[in-house]
Amino acid sequence: MIKQLIDKITSTNAPICVGLDPMLSYIPEHVTKKAFEAFGETLEGAAEAVWQFNKEIVDHTWDLIPSVKPQIAMYEQFGIPGLMAYKKTVDYCHEKGLVVIGDAKRGDIGSTSAAYAAGHIGKVQVGNKTFSGFGTDFLTVNPYFGTDGVKPFVDVCRTEDKGLFILVKTSNPSSGEFQDKLIDGQPLYELVADMVVQWGSGCMDGGYSNIGAVVGATYPKMSRILRQRMPHTYFLVPGYGAQGGTAEDLRDCFNEDGLGAVVNSSRGIIAAYKKEAYAKFGPEHFGEASRQAVIDMVEDIRRVL
Amino acid sequence: MIKQLIDKITSTNAPICVGLDPMLSYIPEHVTKKAFEAFGETLEGAAEAVWQFNKEIVDHTWDLIPSVKPQIAMYEQFGIPGLMAYKKTVDYCHEKGLVVIGDAKRGDIGSTSAAYAAGHIGKVQVGNKTFSGFGTDFLTVNPYFGTDGVKPFVDVCRTEDKGLFILVKTSNPSSGEFQDKLIDGQPLYELVADMVVQWGSGCMDGGYSNIGAVVGATYPKMSRILRQRMPHTYFLVPGYGAQGGTAEDLRDCFNEDGLGAVVNSSRGIIAAYKKEAYAKFGPEHFGEASRQAVIDMVEDIRRVL
Repeated sequence: MIKQLIDKITSTNAPICVGLDPMLSYIPEHVTKKAFEAFGETLEGAAEAVWQFNKEIVDHTWDLIPSVKPQIAMYEQFGIPGLMAYKKTVDYCHEKGLVVIGDAKRGDIGSTSAAYAAGHIGKVQVGNKTFSGFGTDFLTVNPYFGTDGVKPFVDVCRTEDKGLFILVKTSNPSSGEFQDKLIDGQPLYELVADMVVQWGSGCMDGGYSNIGAVVGATYPKMSRILRQRMPHTYFLVPGYGAQGGTAEDLRDCFNEDGLGAVVNSSRGIIAAYKKEAYAKFGPEHFGEASRQAVIDMVEDIRRVL
Repeated sequence: MIKQLIDKITSTNAPICVGLDPMLSYIPEHVTKKAFEAFGETLEGAAEAVWQFNKEIVDHTWDLIPSVKPQIAMYEQFGIPGLMAYKKTVDYCHEKGLVVIGDAKRGDIGSTSAAYAAGHIGKVQVGNKTFSGFGTDFLTVNPYFGTDGVKPFVDVCRTEDKGLFILVKTSNPSSGEFQDKLIDGQPLYELVADMVVQWGSGCMDGGYSNIGAVVGATYPKMSRILRQRMPHTYFLVPGYGAQGGTAEDLRDCFNEDGLGAVVNSSRGIIAAYKKEAYAKFGPEHFGEASRQAVIDMVEDIRRVL
């Protein structure tokens, strides 16, 4: 699956993914108004607004980008109707040929992780049939449980040709509270990184492993060390743009071949029309604003590669 | 909310929760058969089987127990229909007066954790109205992101009188891989424990905080240390029974007042009819087998308190 993502990155010349993390506050009023008229101010109405918003953004950007990363929490907050919008978004992005990274940060004891893996990237057996619950191509995973909590996800990647991005060093301000703590002189995130490499060693797919790592753009010194420490591990890089990471900060997430990282932007793309730079498009043309923001983001990143 | 749980524990004299983690392989054939007849061998059929199975167990145990802990992964594996069965189970348990611990191990950067918190234990705003997506009383949370990833959950606990159980020391075999690593001579899980105490200090509800900790029954020496280190933190204790934890192992999870811990059993209760000790009930009467297993579990734990 990582090969498929790399092929798409190469053909679009855009090492990015668009974070489809729709807060209601990002959605232009004409979209929510129409959704509420059809379904009322209900969870169903919110889910409809989210779905229409996503569709417009995907329709305006799919030909420029290799992948999207819907953050499931933004759908889960609207309960069942929200999760139906998540599934609809995943399916629609697949129709458009996009690689879909389900950002769910799941992780638990072995038998429970196996259920998450089946539901999100694998298949579940029902009688004599098998079904895919959400069917994303990649899933983000939390490593706190250690090997037996991660292995069921890795196993599914092997049998189904799917991929993971496992949390190593996250982009948020307090990520260092535990992740940076020194263990025998080495920060915890490096220890996690070494395990990610180990877990991924049996999942090579071309020059990279299907088992990738989440490495925040907001800590460039650390990403430089991690890039060297895990040369065959693809990085999913959050934190660019709204969270403060700049293109310069990203340089060290990439290998010399210009590969090795896929940079996410959520708010910066999907709520672009709210930024001064794209205000000329107006809320009615928010999809076009997102398209221009994608073009600008790709240019910004490419100039440091 | 922890006071409400403690009141129920005191009135039932049972410091336990029943883990409603239905694997299809646990569900008696007559239940799945009927569900598949109505909905086919589909995700809907599986979800119906799960729901009927849960209902029977709750109907046979609700008067003996204070709380249930549905593991959302077991529902998520069946996609949207599975999650509908989760919601139905949560609602039904509330009708029966049970405290519901949503076992979801969520956690992310701040804005994302806020969305999870709204969906699972809080409320989400849609236009001028507010809705509760899943509406459990407690939620389990993963601490890997540090304070800013946990705080949105804590904030909702404060405004909505809900509670958390944050992963400290998990029950699985490889939990020590990261959690036991020494930082300045102190294991990571103790560092997490200290943060849980700090996060919970503003959320006292009687003698205990609404912010609890997950402490596995399978590492009794560690739970002894943690019990002393966090006297006002309630423990959610997985690992009893099927995972290998014994009643003796549990003793140190409790305070001198006999409070301080709620012990979970999943397989041992919900699939009791499959064990030799309860085989006499037969698959047709699996609910009665679960009831007897609850009675036996409570007796087993009470004799060490």
